[in-house]
Amino acid sequence: MMKKYTSLNDIEDVSALIQKAICLKKNPFAYKSLGRDKTLVMLFFNSSLRTRLSTEKAAKNLGMEVMTLNINNAWGLEFEEHVIMNFDKAEHIKEAAKVISQYATIIGIRAFPNLKDRNRDASEYVLNGFQKYASVPIVNLESATRHPLQALADAITIEELKTKEKPKVVLSWAPHPKALPQSVVNSFIKMMRRVGADFTITHPQGYELNSKIIRGFSVNYNQKEALKNADFVYVKNWSSYTDYGKVLNTNTDWMLTKEKIGTAKLMHCLPVRRNVVIEDAVLDGENAIVIQQANNRTYAAQIVLKELLENL
Amino acid sequence: MMKKYTSLNDIEDVSALIQKAICLKKNPFAYKSLGRDKTLVMLFFNSSLRTRLSTEKAAKNLGMEVMTLNINNAWGLEFEEHVIMNFDKAEHIKEAAKVISQYATIIGIRAFPNLKDRNRDASEYVLNGFQKYASVPIVNLESATRHPLQALADAITIEELKTKEKPKVVLSWAPHPKALPQSVVNSFIKMMRRVGADFTITHPQGYELNSKIIRGFSVNYNQKEALKNADFVYVKNWSSYTDYGKVLNTNTDWMLTKEKIGTAKLMHCLPVRRNVVIEDAVLDGENAIVIQQANNRTYAAQIVLKELLENL
Amino acid sequence: MMKKYTSLNDIEDVSALIQKAICLKKNPFAYKSLGRDKTLVMLFFNSSLRTRLSTEKAAKNLGMEVMTLNINNAWGLEFEEHVIMNFDKAEHIKEAAKVISQYATIIGIRAFPNLKDRNRDASEYVLNGFQKYASVPIVNLESATRHPLQALADAITIEELKTKEKPKVVLSWAPHPKALPQSVVNSFIKMMRRVGADFTITHPQGYELNSKIIRGFSVNYNQKEALKNADFVYVKNWSSYTDYGKVLNTNTDWMLTKEKIGTAKLMHCLPVRRNVVIEDAVLDGENAIVIQQANNRTYAAQIVLKELLENL
Repeated sequence: MMKKYTSLNDIEDVSALIQKAICLKKNPFAYKSLGRDKTLVMLFFNSSLRTRLSTEKAAKNLGMEVMTLNINNAWGLEFEEHVIMNFDKAEHIKEAAKVISQYATIIGIRAFPNLKDRNRDASEYVLNGFQKYASVPIVNLESATRHPLQALADAITIEELKTKEKPKVVLSWAPHPKALPQSVVNSFIKMMRRVGADFTITHPQGYELNSKIIRGFSVNYNQKEALKNADFVYVKNWSSYTDYGKVLNTNTDWMLTKEKIGTAKLMHCLPVRRNVVIEDAVLDGENAIVIQQANNRTYAAQIVLKELLENL
Repeated sequence: MMKKYTSLNDIEDVSALIQKAICLKKNPFAYKSLGRDKTLVMLFFNSSLRTRLSTEKAAKNLGMEVMTLNINNAWGLEFEEHVIMNFDKAEHIKEAAKVISQYATIIGIRAFPNLKDRNRDASEYVLNGFQKYASVPIVNLESATRHPLQALADAITIEELKTKEKPKVVLSWAPHPKALPQSVVNSFIKMMRRVGADFTITHPQGYELNSKIIRGFSVNYNQKEALKNADFVYVKNWSSYTDYGKVLNTNTDWMLTKEKIGTAKLMHCLPVRRNVVIEDAVLDGENAIVIQQANNRTYAAQIVLKELLENL
Repeated sequence: MMKKYTSLNDIEDVSALIQKAICLKKNPFAYKSLGRDKTLVMLFFNSSLRTRLSTEKAAKNLGMEVMTLNINNAWGLEFEEHVIMNFDKAEHIKEAAKVISQYATIIGIRAFPNLKDRNRDASEYVLNGFQKYASVPIVNLESATRHPLQALADAITIEELKTKEKPKVVLSWAPHPKALPQSVVNSFIKMMRRVGADFTITHPQGYELNSKIIRGFSVNYNQKEALKNADFVYVKNWSSYTDYGKVLNTNTDWMLTKEKIGTAKLMHCLPVRRNVVIEDAVLDGENAIVIQQANNRTYAAQIVLKELLENL
């Protein structure tokens, strides 16, 4: 019984959930009475396009009301316990989470890592602060180290488009001028373990991910070799985990090209920088499934909200 | 007949309204057809969490549509009459209020004081500008000198939790590093007069409020003495009214502690700075009713919107 | 069959559409099932009051869901093709438009000109970028060179209030301290051609508009003469088109006064700077129809959305 959705651990049976989502997609308005008089409050500590629109749409497909609040740094929530709040923070997470729970049936939270302090990011203090004090289910709209709604949409997309029982899926690092979180790849890797995929990771040296997350999967520093015979290639930049939050390498060699990807299907969570992460020829080609992936964000969010509403 | 809700003066029978709100709380979706095809437009000149979410929820509980607009300083509304508008203001309140009235059934407005010019704040030029030119009912979502929705939620909370006919209610000033408005306390004091409470105010010298507002109530500069035998303690900082908008005193002695408050119920409008205004032990204790107070914001707003819709 | 509404060219029969809008205004909730399970996504690259509220209201009158996104410069959409996106732009219009189309039944876009590069503004790269890549109908919520929803509201207003078959309509330039787009006047002029109005334009030398747009209409540099016997006077500032984006003239002589306008009805799209563009006596007089014009924004948007929904 799903009671919250803060990580993939909150899914009991991944395959069943994916099938339910695919089924829901065929008839997205079938459960419109389920969310009647129920309210999703979405809190954004960071900007969002896909997550915001797809989750709002998912909630409305279920008949829920949606209230959205942009919480920028100016808001100043305090997450530490027993602090004398005489500086820049105006409200403690204890009150904020409990109060918002009065107005919400479900609370969604987006809070990126700062990519400066690895332990602090790993503590997931924003998401966990809400989880600890809220009295209603929490949905992770991308947190410091995870993006489980994205990973669910990714799995739905692979399930829809695979042409063999166990396709080969490759996660490839790609260059990017800015330091990006590891959250998308962390959740994608975990999802590939859950669905039992034939899965390989490729990235340059220095971009090793959290060893707990990749355990059991092979890492190949040779991108070309790793991509061989791939059915799906998930391309994504992340900043260094060992030299935390750093951009070590701006070598354009790792960009995904048409030649490299061949006939494999291209996945990316978007937004994507064209001709830096992936070249135009791939994104504009017939094997790019990034738009279908983005579309599945709606049904990933909707099946999660549906499960939560059913288990209230 | 309630035709607007800009101050507590717009309530004819306070006790009856409180009872109606308590009744509505038991069955909040009972009047969902009342707001059908009706629209609440909320204008925020300042940020808001509780007021925004609770009022939006209240409106939706009644079946209304809600449209929210953040109007920051950049918007530049002109409130003076007969001005040559060749500087920074792009639109006059006359047009703004009349135009928004075309799209709204009811308009809610939040506009804080600047705490620099007492007369200008007292003029309530933003709220009154909308009141003067709008052709639809106005609801005060906290203005320069009043917060009547908060005061109504406060009164509902006391009514729900009181264990004697006429409980002793104490309003106590508490320290805060920033200059805060007097609006919450002004409306709370007025509400205590309306409900005929056994009411006392305590604050340090220099924090005397508008004498018109406190008339008939005793002020005790000795916090300990004032708190004796209190049933409800409403804690709230405000900046000086006489030395307008100034923080005179950062003496932490006035912080509310468990020892001081004893078995009285703790009220605060939130957000609250922990261990500055009120210590953790009180906020985390069983006598803190601040979350219930925040929850009642929904029903305060909902009963007001319901009355306004019924009297359109 | 209306398939998009990016310019007035998307209207086949203007007179018929105006009549339909007037009819809809009498019974705005009659088509509430038409928009059921349909979503309008509104993207604002610039701030908006009237367009935002009236279009949201129009969509909700039709039973649609509305999701609004403020896209400021920080968002960084890339509009150029084949660019190496290694600088400040995080997402390409190709992905953005296709992705948002997954969540929207109709997309509305507001994107002002920068008034620095005439060719770039004329290219309408933002609006056209979405038009090119979106897979759902696009509605122009004011673009670099056009404001067709405003022009439709203007035509509805004239149709409602005209007292003769072919009233004399005058468009008069007026002073303004800031550089404003030509979009409102471009679309108004085009609309006057479409409805076959008796139409004259008056402005100071140097404010000549795009000759393609004004073709067939006379321009009179003498405001007084132009205004003679006018039935409707549309007042609006615009910056120079020839000396592109410049404010050439801050001469207050061109302000619209009660004396100048006589008994003609005053129109303006708002916001308006009082006593700079138009004097108080005119705006406060009985011949000002600017509020009715603003009200008609709802029905202009609603008839457009209705047509688009019917032709999905």
